[in-house]
Amino acid sequence: MQLKLSQEAKIIDGKDIANKIKDELKEQISQYVAQGNRSPTLTAILVGSDPASQTYVKNKMIAAKYVGIVSNTIELPESTTQDELLNSIKKLNMDTGVDGILVQLPVPNHIDERTICNAVAPSKDVDGFNEVNVGRLALDMKTIVPATPLGVYELLRRTEISTFGKNVVVIGRSKNVGMPTAMLLHTDGNHESRGLDATVTICHRNTPPEQLRRHCKYADIIITAVGKPGLVQRDMVKPGACIIDIGITRVAAKEPGKTKLVGDVDFEEVRKVAGHITPVPGGVGPMTVAMLMSNTFMVAKTLAKARQVNNCNGTN
Amino acid sequence: MQLKLSQEAKIIDGKDIANKIKDELKEQISQYVAQGNRSPTLTAILVGSDPASQTYVKNKMIAAKYVGIVSNTIELPESTTQDELLNSIKKLNMDTGVDGILVQLPVPNHIDERTICNAVAPSKDVDGFNEVNVGRLALDMKTIVPATPLGVYELLRRTEISTFGKNVVVIGRSKNVGMPTAMLLHTDGNHESRGLDATVTICHRNTPPEQLRRHCKYADIIITAVGKPGLVQRDMVKPGACIIDIGITRVAAKEPGKTKLVGDVDFEEVRKVAGHITPVPGGVGPMTVAMLMSNTFMVAKTLAKARQVNNCNGTN
Repeated sequence: MQLKLSQEAKIIDGKDIANKIKDELKEQISQYVAQGNRSPTLTAILVGSDPASQTYVKNKMIAAKYVGIVSNTIELPESTTQDELLNSIKKLNMDTGVDGILVQLPVPNHIDERTICNAVAPSKDVDGFNEVNVGRLALDMKTIVPATPLGVYELLRRTEISTFGKNVVVIGRSKNVGMPTAMLLHTDGNHESRGLDATVTICHRNTPPEQLRRHCKYADIIITAVGKPGLVQRDMVKPGACIIDIGITRVAAKEPGKTKLVGDVDFEEVRKVAGHITPVPGGVGPMTVAMLMSNTFMVAKTLAKARQVNNCNGTN
Repeated sequence: MQLKLSQEAKIIDGKDIANKIKDELKEQISQYVAQGNRSPTLTAILVGSDPASQTYVKNKMIAAKYVGIVSNTIELPESTTQDELLNSIKKLNMDTGVDGILVQLPVPNHIDERTICNAVAPSKDVDGFNEVNVGRLALDMKTIVPATPLGVYELLRRTEISTFGKNVVVIGRSKNVGMPTAMLLHTDGNHESRGLDATVTICHRNTPPEQLRRHCKYADIIITAVGKPGLVQRDMVKPGACIIDIGITRVAAKEPGKTKLVGDVDFEEVRKVAGHITPVPGGVGPMTVAMLMSNTFMVAKTLAKARQVNNCNGTN
């Protein structure tokens, strides 16, 4: 399959944009360190031995190394108790050598995910999952935005997709992706969070299929984060619309015994009518890792500034 | 004007429903006190002498007295500094005799509203404006929900308006009303916050008028919180739709020199096609006060329980 028709959608190359962002970060961090600051640091906690989680963490560590963030993974056994995990987080919260902290989700069933997310100090919470950071996002304040919605935001911004007053449909209402994406999209561009001023419709599992279709038909931008291959079909898409596909599902490939990753969008058909479209893989996925690095550098700078202020106050 | 046509909208009598809620609260609080608990208490801080704010606070205090909440208003001069106000809040936060705390908004211009909202202890924040409570709401957790969105929620619930999978348009994206209303409406009914599982479209000042019209035309429920009389017209409303009008604007009345309050909806025309409609005044307004009382009682019970646990721990 290759691009044949000039009216086919422009593919938004998330990998390319993510690489640019990482290169920018690498440059900025290099300058930052040259100015006498210590390198930003990122510590990941991985509980148990889920292969997918191991891969995710590994990819984050590779990206960290590339941009100049010193990273460290704490691997804890599946049998770790919630209190033990909370103690590990507490130590990292207090360690001035640690900037960003992330706990790779999901955690084992005997551990309460929300308690863990809230235990990470808001100032070090590079995933943006602490309830304080979520509250600040909902209030359009400067905060740490979860990496995937922030990746979508950057994709739209860098592809110069117009959002002001446009109709956006967000499919999926998850707290890590759908909700914060809807928040960034509908809010006021003059506020601290620099919202995108779109009219946003939030659809989810209880939206009747014919209503989902109708909402999508009128959308200038469709952002889907469900994990349901083929959910967004060609006849649901307005010609020229921008399609951002955050869904990731592993399905059987044509070759026997092989698998492949697909999104929520019927890519080969929808690309024939859309104006812009992200592929899966290679769309939002790489952006998530890049924005996590961006969050880590932001956290490092903010913490360094706070330490300086504290030191100055201490000598006065 | 009187109801003539059987197909005219059912008027949702917010005053009546609010009175019922206050009577229920009065009964519950009376039982609670009879069980040996001290009466719930509510302290309002009023900075300056804005007549509208004074009226709002007075109405809250009257409602408090009615339901059996002991209330107190701290009146501070317009010249109060931010630090002075923060100190007053701090004292109330630490005072175990104080349950609910509210700072009547707006505060004078030289005081930062967000700093004040965040200074109220989340556990006593009966307005639900602290960033922690906002974060918990955005995460569908049990929290203190701002009184107006909670009033809308109760109006819909008690009028038995179906919301599951329905199309809802929320007009207005304010942090105290529009945003939390959209949150309660679109979220999962199985989560702690008992969301209403609707498909929600958030419209705002940057939604083009023709798009607002189109979204409204398909809405089963329109909730408007803008403060723009005549914004929602008859030809924008689907026959049978439910109209919740949170707008309040004071306009000139027909009688010379007189004024009256109106909402965002062309009430006399829209009532001819809608299925349900709230009047202004007498719709959402009274619900706000009732839900503030409900929040105060909830806060009082939670704090009392926490004191008991603390006391038990203390004697162990």
